[in-house]
Amino acid sequence: MPSADVTTIFYGPIINPISLTSYSALPRCLLAVDALGNVDWIVEDVAPYELQSTLAAKGKPDANVVDLKDGEFIIPGFIDTHTHAPQVPNMGTGGQYQLLDWLQTLTFPMEAKFEDIKFARSTYASVVKRTVNAGTTTCCYYGTLHLEATKILADIVHSLGQRAFVGKCNMNRESPSYYVEPSVDSSVNATRDLIAHIRALSQSSAAADQEPLVQPIITPRFAISCTDDLLMELGSLVSEDPSLRIQTHISENLSEIDFTLSLFPSASTYAGVYDSFGLLRSNTILAHAVHLSEDEIDLIKARGSGISHCPTSNFNLSSGVAPIGHYLDKGLKVGLGTDVAGGFNISILNAIQNASVAAKVCSFQARDSSTLQPAQQEFANKALSIPTLLYLATAGGAAVCGLENQVGSFAPGKSFDALLVSVREEAGNGGLWGLAGSLSSDVSEDERKKLLEGWLERFLFCGDDRNISRVYVQGRFIGGKAFRS
Amino acid sequence: MPSADVTTIFYGPIINPISLTSYSALPRCLLAVDALGNVDWIVEDVAPYELQSTLAAKGKPDANVVDLKDGEFIIPGFIDTHTHAPQVPNMGTGGQYQLLDWLQTLTFPMEAKFEDIKFARSTYASVVKRTVNAGTTTCCYYGTLHLEATKILADIVHSLGQRAFVGKCNMNRESPSYYVEPSVDSSVNATRDLIAHIRALSQSSAAADQEPLVQPIITPRFAISCTDDLLMELGSLVSEDPSLRIQTHISENLSEIDFTLSLFPSASTYAGVYDSFGLLRSNTILAHAVHLSEDEIDLIKARGSGISHCPTSNFNLSSGVAPIGHYLDKGLKVGLGTDVAGGFNISILNAIQNASVAAKVCSFQARDSSTLQPAQQEFANKALSIPTLLYLATAGGAAVCGLENQVGSFAPGKSFDALLVSVREEAGNGGLWGLAGSLSSDVSEDERKKLLEGWLERFLFCGDDRNISRVYVQGRFIGGKAFRS
Repeated sequence: MPSADVTTIFYGPIINPISLTSYSALPRCLLAVDALGNVDWIVEDVAPYELQSTLAAKGKPDANVVDLKDGEFIIPGFIDTHTHAPQVPNMGTGGQYQLLDWLQTLTFPMEAKFEDIKFARSTYASVVKRTVNAGTTTCCYYGTLHLEATKILADIVHSLGQRAFVGKCNMNRESPSYYVEPSVDSSVNATRDLIAHIRALSQSSAAADQEPLVQPIITPRFAISCTDDLLMELGSLVSEDPSLRIQTHISENLSEIDFTLSLFPSASTYAGVYDSFGLLRSNTILAHAVHLSEDEIDLIKARGSGISHCPTSNFNLSSGVAPIGHYLDKGLKVGLGTDVAGGFNISILNAIQNASVAAKVCSFQARDSSTLQPAQQEFANKALSIPTLLYLATAGGAAVCGLENQVGSFAPGKSFDALLVSVREEAGNGGLWGLAGSLSSDVSEDERKKLLEGWLERFLFCGDDRNISRVYVQGRFIGGKAFRS
Repeated sequence: MPSADVTTIFYGPIINPISLTSYSALPRCLLAVDALGNVDWIVEDVAPYELQSTLAAKGKPDANVVDLKDGEFIIPGFIDTHTHAPQVPNMGTGGQYQLLDWLQTLTFPMEAKFEDIKFARSTYASVVKRTVNAGTTTCCYYGTLHLEATKILADIVHSLGQRAFVGKCNMNRESPSYYVEPSVDSSVNATRDLIAHIRALSQSSAAADQEPLVQPIITPRFAISCTDDLLMELGSLVSEDPSLRIQTHISENLSEIDFTLSLFPSASTYAGVYDSFGLLRSNTILAHAVHLSEDEIDLIKARGSGISHCPTSNFNLSSGVAPIGHYLDKGLKVGLGTDVAGGFNISILNAIQNASVAAKVCSFQARDSSTLQPAQQEFANKALSIPTLLYLATAGGAAVCGLENQVGSFAPGKSFDALLVSVREEAGNGGLWGLAGSLSSDVSEDERKKLLEGWLERFLFCGDDRNISRVYVQGRFIGGKAFRS
């Protein structure tokens, strides 16, 4: 690979999300990455015979071009807007429980183990490496309540070069005695300590006009686990420093909602609890949102907060189906989350597949109950299209993270956070083959686009980490199958 | 691997399905396979110090024992009770359609290509190999309407050593002009020809008291595509030869049901159509069954037919959710099907995961509509447990295929159709790791069982073909990761 001070130029098929309903399929795109790892320029359609003249016109006649093979293409990296790094060791277990029992039985005991620094270090190293290799270029990580373990998580993310938000849980009540913070002060002080630690990590490496790769995020576990005065202190913290993102859970499970409202008798809704403490902001990430009322949707819209849709988890813990189409019609920002270990897969590909399933379940629930929505609704109770699913996994997630100007799609000045995908036979995925060998032949532009669109669709539904050859964050090659082998 | 005339003895963790609600987790099992590939004997718990004496008592003091490594275990092979081999090239595409449009737009054009023998040969070779490597030891394959291509499919299955039922579609109406059979006679004659071809394949290799590995299956595509006289002829065929299995589709999609009833005005239900032609028998496999009436359930129960539950396909084509728990309460036989390319994954692991999701969707649909079932119902509107999911994928599928005395679980005299699963790090699945290294240490019997149960659960939800090291059919090692590398 080229070193950081040399421009990298890619030539070949590139997929670029445009909106919730469209993306560009560019089979012969030329894309240059500058020395800082940002996209320098893009020429969307360059025929092979135009390649040299185009490079010359860009002042790069002798550039070393990365020429994609037939069956390879580039897409923006996936953005996982909600996952729990310390729960990954539980992944694939516990599907017999619903949320509150699941927390007590499996989740809190596992998270408590991260008091052991050695365990935290080895586990997190494995988790972050695998998350990168699954194609997640930006990840919103919940840590545990432990300051030291969460510093280690941030250190590992930083050293591997993934873009991430890393938070330690604030939780000072309604948690087991072996896994709870002793006071508001200790919770807030540890949070401030973590913020300082993470910001110090990136001071040397971030370009002046860009946000650093690893950032702290305020993480009240969920309203149930935080006293009023803790939420108030966290609200003060983010009002002092509005660049701080917030991540939390909302309306995942019916029992959780009832319990929340019983703990905050002055709030009329779950969203209202967070809002009353100044925690519902334009950079707040709300995971789940399965059972929001219309009032809550309007409030979230007014505050500009984003929704992290975690369909695999919502199915697996029998939480329900979030009506994402309705949220999109309402103009809410939506991204996807794996929510491991509520979800049983670290890959956003699985979240894409289950987001598709969830929307279809909404569609036939509406059909069976004869509550079909009026025709002017674009997304509610309908299947999500490929452009919509792609958008949610990339640009939609970027908007939820407040990174819409930096990642999620390709444009000059944006960071080159990208996946080099291979649907070639030798990728070794037994469920995806027979696609290469077509694009290089003499086909029309329309046909080329259709082939590339087919590759994308097949990758989204049949692909796995074997099809992710290279993972780039800020122009740097940090993972993927080609990195491992 | 030992050659066919030597008994193979496995020592280590074995999972053995017992019923819909239980399985045996046997961490220190000794299992012998005889020269015909059948299970000879099983000793369920053998401590390491007892191994030599147990072998001696069995008359095998010098046997070469296959000693499973820590992190490996054996389960019965998966049984895919419904898939379409010629649709695999479309896998992962077409999720925007519902059934009838999807057939016209994508499926019939792809199937029509199998008139080309060369295309059929190369495609089917790839499909069957990958299906085996995904852990499917018994597969119910739909072919196309083409006799020659379907003979090729059967030949390939036979030569690879998979257990399978292979059928050519009977379809003489309501199909595109380029892909329809010209007459009842040609359809029935081709079917008879295929039956003779497939039965000739296995004559040399089947043991006297066992069914051959590859068998023909009568395959009226679905009622819509068959005239009354074609269905009548097929009914005669199976009444002449009751050992012939039948596979078809039923009640997948609401428009399909309406259309079916309009084509058969004298039938009161979809199931009634098949029954009126003698096609609803104890060896009939009915794929989908999403929208059965109570009368149809009772009729199917009375006839002893089985249901192939294809949850991934039912989600993907927006067909709905089959109420499998209700069917189990009613005593119907149920297995799992991938239904590629309605489904987008050739692996029964994916069908297991989506069967779990589908049952949970039923559970929260019932909750939200306040139609919770009475407590005496064991399965309806509840999550499916791990034992139930495992059973459906193995012994349940065997019963649907009429092979309950031969495969689906391990017992003396049954065929050794099995998977050697590895959850070890070196399996290379980025979503499943960190589990080995525990069973070999000095833990209690209870603890050993729990560990093994954990491996199974994690494999079912996070595993993929990389975790399937060896695939055995009738005692023969025919595929899996260790076969490829």
